[in-house]
Amino acid sequence: MTPKGFMFSAMKAPIKKWNKEDIGIIISNRPCSAAAVFTSNRIKAAPVLVDMEHIRHKTHRAVICNSGNANAVTGSIGMKNARLTVESLASELGIDARETLIASTGVIGVQMPMYQVLTAIPVLVRTLEMDPAGFTRAIMTTDTRPKVASATVSLNNRRIKVWGTAKGAGMIHPNMATMLAFIVTDADVPKAVLSAATREAAETTFNRITIDGDTSTNDTLLVMANGAAGNAPLKKGSPGYKKFLEALTEVCRGLSEKIVSDGEGVTRFAEIRVEKAATVKEALTVARAVAGSLLVKTALHGGDPNWGRIICAVGNSGVPVVAEKLELYFGPHLVYKDGLPTDISEEKLVKEVNKTKVVIRLVLNRGKVRESYLFSDLSRKYVEINAEYRT
Amino acid sequence: MTPKGFMFSAMKAPIKKWNKEDIGIIISNRPCSAAAVFTSNRIKAAPVLVDMEHIRHKTHRAVICNSGNANAVTGSIGMKNARLTVESLASELGIDARETLIASTGVIGVQMPMYQVLTAIPVLVRTLEMDPAGFTRAIMTTDTRPKVASATVSLNNRRIKVWGTAKGAGMIHPNMATMLAFIVTDADVPKAVLSAATREAAETTFNRITIDGDTSTNDTLLVMANGAAGNAPLKKGSPGYKKFLEALTEVCRGLSEKIVSDGEGVTRFAEIRVEKAATVKEALTVARAVAGSLLVKTALHGGDPNWGRIICAVGNSGVPVVAEKLELYFGPHLVYKDGLPTDISEEKLVKEVNKTKVVIRLVLNRGKVRESYLFSDLSRKYVEINAEYRT
Repeated sequence: MTPKGFMFSAMKAPIKKWNKEDIGIIISNRPCSAAAVFTSNRIKAAPVLVDMEHIRHKTHRAVICNSGNANAVTGSIGMKNARLTVESLASELGIDARETLIASTGVIGVQMPMYQVLTAIPVLVRTLEMDPAGFTRAIMTTDTRPKVASATVSLNNRRIKVWGTAKGAGMIHPNMATMLAFIVTDADVPKAVLSAATREAAETTFNRITIDGDTSTNDTLLVMANGAAGNAPLKKGSPGYKKFLEALTEVCRGLSEKIVSDGEGVTRFAEIRVEKAATVKEALTVARAVAGSLLVKTALHGGDPNWGRIICAVGNSGVPVVAEKLELYFGPHLVYKDGLPTDISEEKLVKEVNKTKVVIRLVLNRGKVRESYLFSDLSRKYVEINAEYRT
Repeated sequence: MTPKGFMFSAMKAPIKKWNKEDIGIIISNRPCSAAAVFTSNRIKAAPVLVDMEHIRHKTHRAVICNSGNANAVTGSIGMKNARLTVESLASELGIDARETLIASTGVIGVQMPMYQVLTAIPVLVRTLEMDPAGFTRAIMTTDTRPKVASATVSLNNRRIKVWGTAKGAGMIHPNMATMLAFIVTDADVPKAVLSAATREAAETTFNRITIDGDTSTNDTLLVMANGAAGNAPLKKGSPGYKKFLEALTEVCRGLSEKIVSDGEGVTRFAEIRVEKAATVKEALTVARAVAGSLLVKTALHGGDPNWGRIICAVGNSGVPVVAEKLELYFGPHLVYKDGLPTDISEEKLVKEVNKTKVVIRLVLNRGKVRESYLFSDLSRKYVEINAEYRT
């Protein structure tokens, strides 16, 4: 069950020749507060630029999303098309255009097929339903399955729900890398409080995953809270805020894991935990160096416990690590210490790195900070998908 | 013909079970000045640590290199083995151990098979010859072919030669990324002058190439000048110095191109030229972002003129570019300007990006600086090689 007061619809516009829904909307039956995190890419797609304006509005009611065309690198025509889309939806719903948010994903540099989009909108509005299944499929591109996550939490004896769906697949990297995520909750959360919680939750989840290191022009995380659960408005720093943040983080983490494990051509994923680092920055720098190394990612793909490549990637991170002070574990097994490999059996290690989720622990022995990062393997299939995507 | 006064030998130690030479030496019949550039990886292999000491010595006579074992992440035993190797060669040749340099490439974290190394050394010294062919094969790992480059230049009416060989393949990235290169010249170049020329030549060649973004623990460029050509010792800033630097750069560039085009699984390579940048740093940052993007590399592999991914990578570089001011060319064809794709025919673009070497020009319109970078595509074969390397 999704949070109270939200409805969904989806259909095949079609934006592209494929056999699934590719445009969808989420509507709240009452005004929401909304928060967003956008791509860090300097080249932002038209829908992102429109959202960056609209998110400043006090209330929001609707989101529209399409797959198959990113409306990115489409110049002023692209901007006009994005505005026309939100205006058309707002007019159909009888709301302010600024209450409408928009997201797109797909090919870059091609103008949006507006006839399809504009004829879809009235149909979408007429077919709203409680079931979000169509919407979760409509946002998919090379994703192999829809991704949803949810959590519930009790605030002032009111049961509140947080529910979200995301699309990922390629180009996933920290700081909102081609990923769209839509999270809705029936909690009553004032806009400023929701913004803080969204930033905090994204930082430790969506911003700590990587598939291929590229950050897209379109990445967007939208969170909408409509207050239908009837709790007292959340205050920053209150016990209720903490509980809400945990629920939101749980949904973000669930979606993040699903995005990594369904990355393009992904057969296996790993968590790199960097422990006893001197600072958060240094822990993340080391984690990113390991998570982003093609040699580590291909070894992970091959199920090869090639710890030498991990140590090599750590040496490349720029953090002044000392080889003799590092400790490296695959699962529970210590494989490297005092500058040398241990005598752990190869058989045990092979078993460990052939799991679907591999846990790698790297102890820097430089301080007390611990941070982790999720990353995927790199497969022939990834290359195949991305060498042939456009053709 | 190699420069005067240098001899080579090579044999199968064997360090590994394979059907080629895997240990070799280069000897000069007179003292050389030598210069080196080493890996920027914080975790440096034992031979690199030994060389960093030895390179401070005034003169050098010999280099020994093996493939099949990197002697990296091998602790104090690895250091002892590297020292024992240079001492054994020095004693066989009757020279100071500090006149001997060493390089290794191959698997990480396994101790060197010293019996094979130590029994090979006397044989290598007895079988020295003018022909470098065996040595060029002995340094290869996953390289599919030996790599050599040479140049000649006239200094004070003396014809001087610069000759080099390199091994590359995987883990190639700026700043000496798993690459070994040995360059010898019969020019008379004082040590300080040779150091300056080597740094300068490496900066615009070896440090501007990338295959997979990883920098190895072992990368080493060694340049030795023995003065056998009889020119007057080169002075920094003199016309002769400029000519010598050009010849050295030509050899470095030749080896760099050969390394990229023979990268693991490489089917095609590209030069990204960033023009009208505000600073060298910004030009290189943009070039590296494009050259390192997996989406750009896979599109290159697929022969897909996917300019959108290039623009997206530029946006990810961190340089505050403005989409509307960028111009992008594939070969002679303008594909993107004023924030939009041009109407150049897809057919022409496909033809352009299916060349063996693709030239991509990106005009930032922010200043006057121009820099370029060489990079390879990313193929299924790369994944195959690196997922199965150790097993």
